[in-house]
Amino acid sequence: MSELALRAEKLDAEDELAPLRDRFVLDDVVYLDGNSLGALPAHVPDRLADVVRREWGELRIRSWEESGWWTAPERVGDRIAPLVGAAPGQVVVGDSTSVNVFKALVAAVRMAGESRDELLVDATTFPTDGYIAASAARLTGRTLRAVTPAEVPDALSGRTAAVLLNHVDYRTGRLHDLPALTAAVHASGALAVWDLCHSAGALPVGLDEHGVDLAVGCTYKYLNGGPGAPAYLYVREELQDRFDSPLPGWNSHAEPFGMNPAYAPAPGAVRGRVGTPDILSLLALEAALDVWEGVSITAVRAKSLALTDFFLRCVAAYTEPGRVECVTPERHAERGSQIALRCADAGEVMKRLIARGVVGDFRHPDILRFGFTPLYVGFRDVERAARVLGEELA
Amino acid sequence: MSELALRAEKLDAEDELAPLRDRFVLDDVVYLDGNSLGALPAHVPDRLADVVRREWGELRIRSWEESGWWTAPERVGDRIAPLVGAAPGQVVVGDSTSVNVFKALVAAVRMAGESRDELLVDATTFPTDGYIAASAARLTGRTLRAVTPAEVPDALSGRTAAVLLNHVDYRTGRLHDLPALTAAVHASGALAVWDLCHSAGALPVGLDEHGVDLAVGCTYKYLNGGPGAPAYLYVREELQDRFDSPLPGWNSHAEPFGMNPAYAPAPGAVRGRVGTPDILSLLALEAALDVWEGVSITAVRAKSLALTDFFLRCVAAYTEPGRVECVTPERHAERGSQIALRCADAGEVMKRLIARGVVGDFRHPDILRFGFTPLYVGFRDVERAARVLGEELA
Repeated sequence: MSELALRAEKLDAEDELAPLRDRFVLDDVVYLDGNSLGALPAHVPDRLADVVRREWGELRIRSWEESGWWTAPERVGDRIAPLVGAAPGQVVVGDSTSVNVFKALVAAVRMAGESRDELLVDATTFPTDGYIAASAARLTGRTLRAVTPAEVPDALSGRTAAVLLNHVDYRTGRLHDLPALTAAVHASGALAVWDLCHSAGALPVGLDEHGVDLAVGCTYKYLNGGPGAPAYLYVREELQDRFDSPLPGWNSHAEPFGMNPAYAPAPGAVRGRVGTPDILSLLALEAALDVWEGVSITAVRAKSLALTDFFLRCVAAYTEPGRVECVTPERHAERGSQIALRCADAGEVMKRLIARGVVGDFRHPDILRFGFTPLYVGFRDVERAARVLGEELA
Repeated sequence: MSELALRAEKLDAEDELAPLRDRFVLDDVVYLDGNSLGALPAHVPDRLADVVRREWGELRIRSWEESGWWTAPERVGDRIAPLVGAAPGQVVVGDSTSVNVFKALVAAVRMAGESRDELLVDATTFPTDGYIAASAARLTGRTLRAVTPAEVPDALSGRTAAVLLNHVDYRTGRLHDLPALTAAVHASGALAVWDLCHSAGALPVGLDEHGVDLAVGCTYKYLNGGPGAPAYLYVREELQDRFDSPLPGWNSHAEPFGMNPAYAPAPGAVRGRVGTPDILSLLALEAALDVWEGVSITAVRAKSLALTDFFLRCVAAYTEPGRVECVTPERHAERGSQIALRCADAGEVMKRLIARGVVGDFRHPDILRFGFTPLYVGFRDVERAARVLGEELA
């Protein structure tokens, strides 16, 4: 057994989070794509079967009250809240990330006031945030400017209404400095809107602590909510009364069953709701969040960094120098929970890796992306992935 | 046995759709709330269990391609299409009805052009449509005017950009004249946007035949897709190239995995997509649509009218005259698939009905609402419901 394989065994033996793997359905594949679709938590199928057979099939319409369907968006939001450093009552679940980006940006622009006519968006963002930001700018009569996160401080001015940033870059895995960037945005009088898709569930976010104004995120990556599971919206408590949604559906009404033709927004996080919540997906997500029972996000972060450190060490050992370029920062403070390696034949290489049971993904045009979910990825997985990668790159 | 009970037996015996009831999970409750939440199709639990355990749990990320997840919004849309009289390629499933109303209205206003500065909305609409229409008007700089469907022809002018109408009124059960109203809207040069929540699956809609421009609907009522199942959007083929979505998420991009920072809309119905589709709910809906195999919507309509006719006859026989007022039109051409009865104590009466196994719903302030789903409601159910109602009203 190689030195690295022995080291992996030792690290696994010392890993306090290792037993969490049993909370998931996994096989002998090394699954490094949990940053795209999290693995299935083992108890979710039974819970969802109960939702379908008993709550829908037997109780039918009564479940909106008796099974707590109606309040699920806020209740599940409060389950996500501690994972992103939010006190209760500020997170609501529903709709897709894209739709929540739209709500957050239009609401942010409205809060910023008429005099601020510019919206800044992360130029390196996952494209949907940029497309939606462009739509929000167009509909609110603002100008959209794309700048890299590093350029944000210099780009801020009295014209800036809001800034949409990604906590972790989907491609490179770079972790941006949320506290410092939020403070800079606030110093200019603008609102900070963060997309947490690639950080929530992998590292501490600290929304309340750092005074983030609005945030959105998906729940099907590190939160393991299932394919296309509903996204969430965070609105800082002090801003909730001023949150003026561009999608004021009946679920966000102060009295949704009053059937009043005049709109009156509900107080609190409920104001971020729109239409009837997607119950099957929402309750699958709620069950999926049970895996976090007793898990500290600080411990998750420590393991995440240990996993990515070890992966980089193994890749360096198993791969010819220069064959791939790591585009994820070495510095822990700048690294999310994934490693992105650049090579010209990344698409082909990833196909071969998957065929050999090492599942990452390919991001156009030349990125091999490996996500490390500390709840179920171990160090032997990491060593094997790097070894197979080295063989396929040879 | 009473004459009406005998009559009900005979009608059930003659009912060609009666065997369809076996396609659903039902008990001895008379379920007249399928216009709020359709009953569970019997095969859906097994199908959803397979989606969860095998497609998510075993194939994981591979299912986006191998299990057809990625193309589900259009595929399921094409399953709904024949039920609303649409040729393939014009219906896409995803998001809530409210979100789809927003897409449809903003896109309609944009297609109508700058010179048309007014949006008309059904003053009797389910409130969410009105709230969302107000938001669409505000964001596009148009004026919103609420008029009853009867007032629409006179309200139309060269200023009208689009008109949002309900095919069937959620409260009264009135069926509006979609062909005539659409023709009137078109004669004024405006676009007709229809909300089909209370008609799709209960009666023929004829979107293509009548030249409807855009339409939306939910799938959890007469389509039995499950609680909060995703809604759909219809965009008439000739308009698709001009459909300019206010929610241009990455799923609507011509090349979604190209990760291009510049937005380029996909052709066809795909353009109505936004973010990652909610797969669990979407595939539960897809399975639910299997119950339509071999079912003619014309036969469904005929049975629906026979059910509501018979219900009115039974209510007249079992209830003291004047105790309730029927607010649903007597004329078949003006009746959807529900009966709404007004009485001052409707809230209390409905509680007692539900306690006795007759499930309808209460709509504020004074409406008893009974929905008749022809796929699983029989004539003996109808007689029993009216009889229990008569007893509770006595």
